Amino acid sequence: MRIARFSIDGNVAFGAVEGESPPGSTDGLVLDIIKGIPFADFELSGTKVPLSKVRLLPPVLPNKVVAFGRNYAEHAKEMGGEAPDAPFAFFKPSTSVIGSGDAIAYPSFSQELHHEAELAVVIGRMCREVPRERVKDVILGYTCANDVTARDVQRREKQWARAKGFDSSCPLGPWVETDLDPSDLTIQCTVNGQQRQLGRTSEMVHSIEDLIVNITEAMTLLPGDVILTGTPAGVGPLSVGDEVAVTIEGIGTLTNKVIKRG
Amino acid sequence: MRIARFSIDGNVAFGAVEGESPPGSTDGLVLDIIKGIPFADFELSGTKVPLSKVRLLPPVLPNKVVAFGRNYAEHAKEMGGEAPDAPFAFFKPSTSVIGSGDAIAYPSFSQELHHEAELAVVIGRMCREVPRERVKDVILGYTCANDVTARDVQRREKQWARAKGFDSSCPLGPWVETDLDPSDLTIQCTVNGQQRQLGRTSEMVHSIEDLIVNITEAMTLLPGDVILTGTPAGVGPLSVGDEVAVTIEGIGTLTNKVIKRG
Repeated sequence: MRIARFSIDGNVAFGAVEGESPPGSTDGLVLDIIKGIPFADFELSGTKVPLSKVRLLPPVLPNKVVAFGRNYAEHAKEMGGEAPDAPFAFFKPSTSVIGSGDAIAYPSFSQELHHEAELAVVIGRMCREVPRERVKDVILGYTCANDVTARDVQRREKQWARAKGFDSSCPLGPWVETDLDPSDLTIQCTVNGQQRQLGRTSEMVHSIEDLIVNITEAMTLLPGDVILTGTPAGVGPLSVGDEVAVTIEGIGTLTNKVIKRG
Repeated sequence: MRIARFSIDGNVAFGAVEGESPPGSTDGLVLDIIKGIPFADFELSGTKVPLSKVRLLPPVLPNKVVAFGRNYAEHAKEMGGEAPDAPFAFFKPSTSVIGSGDAIAYPSFSQELHHEAELAVVIGRMCREVPRERVKDVILGYTCANDVTARDVQRREKQWARAKGFDSSCPLGPWVETDLDPSDLTIQCTVNGQQRQLGRTSEMVHSIEDLIVNITEAMTLLPGDVILTGTPAGVGPLSVGDEVAVTIEGIGTLTNKVIKRG
């Protein structure tokens, strides 16, 4: 099931996305409004609205976004290093999250924003110290993410709170796909329609199981928390006016325009 | 005013701390329960309870904790480096926050927890791109913090999400002091009554104004967010069974026992 979060007439709701649409379009898609929230048992209301009539919101409101660095060998190489033996994580704050269709606002403290297309795992239940064989039980589903990075700031600052945590640096969406085998999906990033990144999730150095075991050794994850699993090679600059799109096979396309921060 | 957050008969409330007590004790302190929340206009109810009858909670529930690294030159030196020319920040997640009297649970993925006593700034209003001369307007007050660190994990992992973000790694408290000049206060850490750290906030490399200008260049801070301003020299190990106390002049003492994670 594809679960979207959206606002309609000022109310925020979740809905199941139904129907088929041409690539890059939402024509023909309908939302069946969910009674309750997708982190517990829920029912479809049967009340349907065209997706084109609502504003999509970030599909979840994460308490925290945990992102893993250098988890594709070719990207580690382009960054001038090797993939680490063990995963390493950093945080993106909830204030950095935007949805599909929202703007990435270019902040004045950077002159070099980069796109980083990533598969995002959405956590479905509170968990800590998750054994490898139980990882699938704590996952609600998957969505597309863009780990937008102020590369110049990242080079200068030892820890990446500012470089990767500024407002609008974490586009997520367009929805959460709950029925998906994430082990070998194409992941693509285009800027103004031109391909910049292309990889497969099978190229991850550390698997989704590894990443969730690793982070939950240390800390509790809450429903709606998001894990970013690393980006394939091909990261590159974004400019004001660009449209950046992250497409993951079996999920859909996350699209954001870059504007100047007002 | 000193504002505490506490639970009484299952309800969570804020209260103004009144009275005087001997050092290290809460005898004689009384809470005047606050109507409303301290992030907006509020009144004291006049209903008073002895502080000894309630359970103190973390004085705020931060959306994010932004911590600055190596902001005291002597600590940077003991870590084998120098204080950076510009501040650098990392996050501690909301799931790491505990209050005074709560236990620091020693996690099994580390064998080397260290204490780091710090002055914490509590943000009072939503803000971004705060000009230096307006910084005082976004501050609600100050509390004590312990930036508990898994030093072995910090040495191994390029980014510090696990090393500094594990559950119970961010003790805050005992309360927020709203009337305080933070520019030259003694900050002390004891373990089992023996002094380990002693410094003055005047030794900070980058001032509180610098830190808040720096982080809000990048991101929005929300009411209740917390800024940790760095630790003076003398960091060292904690063991199961230890009692660690952070005392800051004009604020009070944050005390936590170290237990084995259950």
